[in-house]
Amino acid sequence: MPQRPSRQLPLATPAGVEVLTRILTQGPIPRVEIARRTGLSQAAVTKAVAPLIEAGFVTDQAAAPLGADQTGIGRPVSPLTVVPQSVSVIGLKVTPTALIGVTTDFTAGILNVCHRPLDDTAPDAVIEQLAGLAKELIATLRTAGPLVGIGVAVSGDVDERHGVVRDSPFMGWREVAVAELLGKRLKVPIVVTNDVRALTVAEHWFGVGVDADSFAVVTIGSGIGCGLYINGEVVSGAYGVSGELGHLPLAPGDLVCTCGRRGCVETVASSDAILARARETTGRPNLDLADAIELAHDGDEHARAAFDRAGEVIGSALAAMVNLVGPELVVIAGEGVAEYDLYEERMRQAFAAHAFGAAGDCRLMLRSHTFDDWARGAAATVIRTYVRGEPPLQR
Amino acid sequence: MPQRPSRQLPLATPAGVEVLTRILTQGPIPRVEIARRTGLSQAAVTKAVAPLIEAGFVTDQAAAPLGADQTGIGRPVSPLTVVPQSVSVIGLKVTPTALIGVTTDFTAGILNVCHRPLDDTAPDAVIEQLAGLAKELIATLRTAGPLVGIGVAVSGDVDERHGVVRDSPFMGWREVAVAELLGKRLKVPIVVTNDVRALTVAEHWFGVGVDADSFAVVTIGSGIGCGLYINGEVVSGAYGVSGELGHLPLAPGDLVCTCGRRGCVETVASSDAILARARETTGRPNLDLADAIELAHDGDEHARAAFDRAGEVIGSALAAMVNLVGPELVVIAGEGVAEYDLYEERMRQAFAAHAFGAAGDCRLMLRSHTFDDWARGAAATVIRTYVRGEPPLQR
Repeated sequence: MPQRPSRQLPLATPAGVEVLTRILTQGPIPRVEIARRTGLSQAAVTKAVAPLIEAGFVTDQAAAPLGADQTGIGRPVSPLTVVPQSVSVIGLKVTPTALIGVTTDFTAGILNVCHRPLDDTAPDAVIEQLAGLAKELIATLRTAGPLVGIGVAVSGDVDERHGVVRDSPFMGWREVAVAELLGKRLKVPIVVTNDVRALTVAEHWFGVGVDADSFAVVTIGSGIGCGLYINGEVVSGAYGVSGELGHLPLAPGDLVCTCGRRGCVETVASSDAILARARETTGRPNLDLADAIELAHDGDEHARAAFDRAGEVIGSALAAMVNLVGPELVVIAGEGVAEYDLYEERMRQAFAAHAFGAAGDCRLMLRSHTFDDWARGAAATVIRTYVRGEPPLQR
Repeated sequence: MPQRPSRQLPLATPAGVEVLTRILTQGPIPRVEIARRTGLSQAAVTKAVAPLIEAGFVTDQAAAPLGADQTGIGRPVSPLTVVPQSVSVIGLKVTPTALIGVTTDFTAGILNVCHRPLDDTAPDAVIEQLAGLAKELIATLRTAGPLVGIGVAVSGDVDERHGVVRDSPFMGWREVAVAELLGKRLKVPIVVTNDVRALTVAEHWFGVGVDADSFAVVTIGSGIGCGLYINGEVVSGAYGVSGELGHLPLAPGDLVCTCGRRGCVETVASSDAILARARETTGRPNLDLADAIELAHDGDEHARAAFDRAGEVIGSALAAMVNLVGPELVVIAGEGVAEYDLYEERMRQAFAAHAFGAAGDCRLMLRSHTFDDWARGAAATVIRTYVRGEPPLQR
């Protein structure tokens, strides 16, 4: 096995992409099983796999333990796995107060993490800081596989095709050409993506999506977001917008959202909205979010009421979403998950009250969550783009 | 070309199914274009097409005019089309007051239509009437292609796999095994489907879906329904429920829906809800829907208010749906479309107020609508099931 294979994936056909995707997301997996799941002939699978083994991206030599495939005895076939260290990726997450960066291997396994506080959200300043963070992370990759790309995850409306953040209210950005600005400084292909969609891609390839035919990722915290995986693909929206659970008109119409619309879910369910409400109900205008959480945990009725109201509208929004798309399961993530106990009761009540028939059978699953996961989502998006040979990582 | 080909489609592989689907939904189409769109080799396309031509399902002899493919001059290739009369299908739509039946050819082109009033909605009585209607339609097929199946479209929660209507509030049905009961009487394979999903299948294969990458069908009338086509397939819901736009909790919470939940869209937007409201606002408890429509058209403020309230919540529901799934276009159908002028203004205002960013760019398209379209949807579902070789029409 070559120590440092070239960046170039030897994939000539759509069948090759399909085969590598199966190995990457479902490995260890025998050739015959790939044939069964894809409908390809065994000869076609073998033909697609050979150059991947030759180039060092895939192996049929079980390293370490057998992993998920515990069938074991005798092992008449050699299951295929990717060689994690054959590829390196960087994922970056941009928030108004910090940048988070990770390096990962080919399977989105995190190698290194780096956080940087941010004191200026102006696009130029952030791009400069991002470039610095990326360079620091690149330096840690000396003994790792070749870097194939850098992913940047930002909340809001992101034009992935052109690498442009069209509108990010949290950052105060409009039409920021992140891919171009960062690419110039780093000479590495840059993939820019919406942060919730990035998390959904990570779940699709390296998380619950491996076993679920459809799922939703719902994030609670400073915003309320949603990523959907339906009919074999993450939903991207014909015009680049989808999963805007935080902007369903389910809250009272007299509340105006940061987006300018009335009655959005976020007007009562974002952490800012909860804090504002807790300040009102407790009559303590100088509370911060940690105070509000502490008060609610201590049983303060007024602080709890703010979380109750948020939980109720989040539950209604979850019901609206499952009534429309009927996912197999819902992963609840985001920084708000740390205080899930404060939302849960009212959320489940509202969900049960409004979920329609069998749509309510979908499981709600909690994902304990760190900011590193957002950055890993950006890395997963790079890996998917790389395997599929899509721009800017086309072969 | 044989006059009456056998019912058996000569499709041995998934590639064959893909090729026939392209010819059926995108024909006339040259072999080379099928290869380009599917990623199959030209040899594979030719190999899949040969037995279909041999058996009389497909032809490369342009009959009539060239149709959609106007490129014309010289015609270096022979575009493929299906032979419409090679297959016959029956589609039936069940409503509380009437049964509607159509016969169609292989391209879902309607051959015959038959309506029957219904005065008893008890399952046994309806099945008996459905069987009679089907026999009448079968008798009209003597000179048509062999009948491959009968589709039955019913509103509500339908278990397509087992051919069971699990819950249809409009019919007052629970757990009615339509496929089994009807199949016993007719000795023809029966496909049972939700009516809005059937309409969506018809749009997918024979309507807007031919040109759109994603779309929604929203029906207004006695119920508010929604079918979604995303990522290459009609959304069916992991638990058989999806598209329940009429049961998003967007209306006032003091209103109880026919489904027993509070605040559903249908509590103000179904035709029954509009009528009830119009009776209230006009103070005329004996109005019927036609009266209410007439009054509203004549400019009666009180009657108009009932339609305004419905239009507003339908617009909010449309916005919620596009914010979540971001379709390329929305087809508005259903019997309520006949009075679309009464809903339109408020609906568009509410949609514009709540659609998030570029999600609002999706076109809203009206489909003038008859009950025959629902029955044709059931027929289209049979055609799709037949081509794909799914139960109960497996090869």
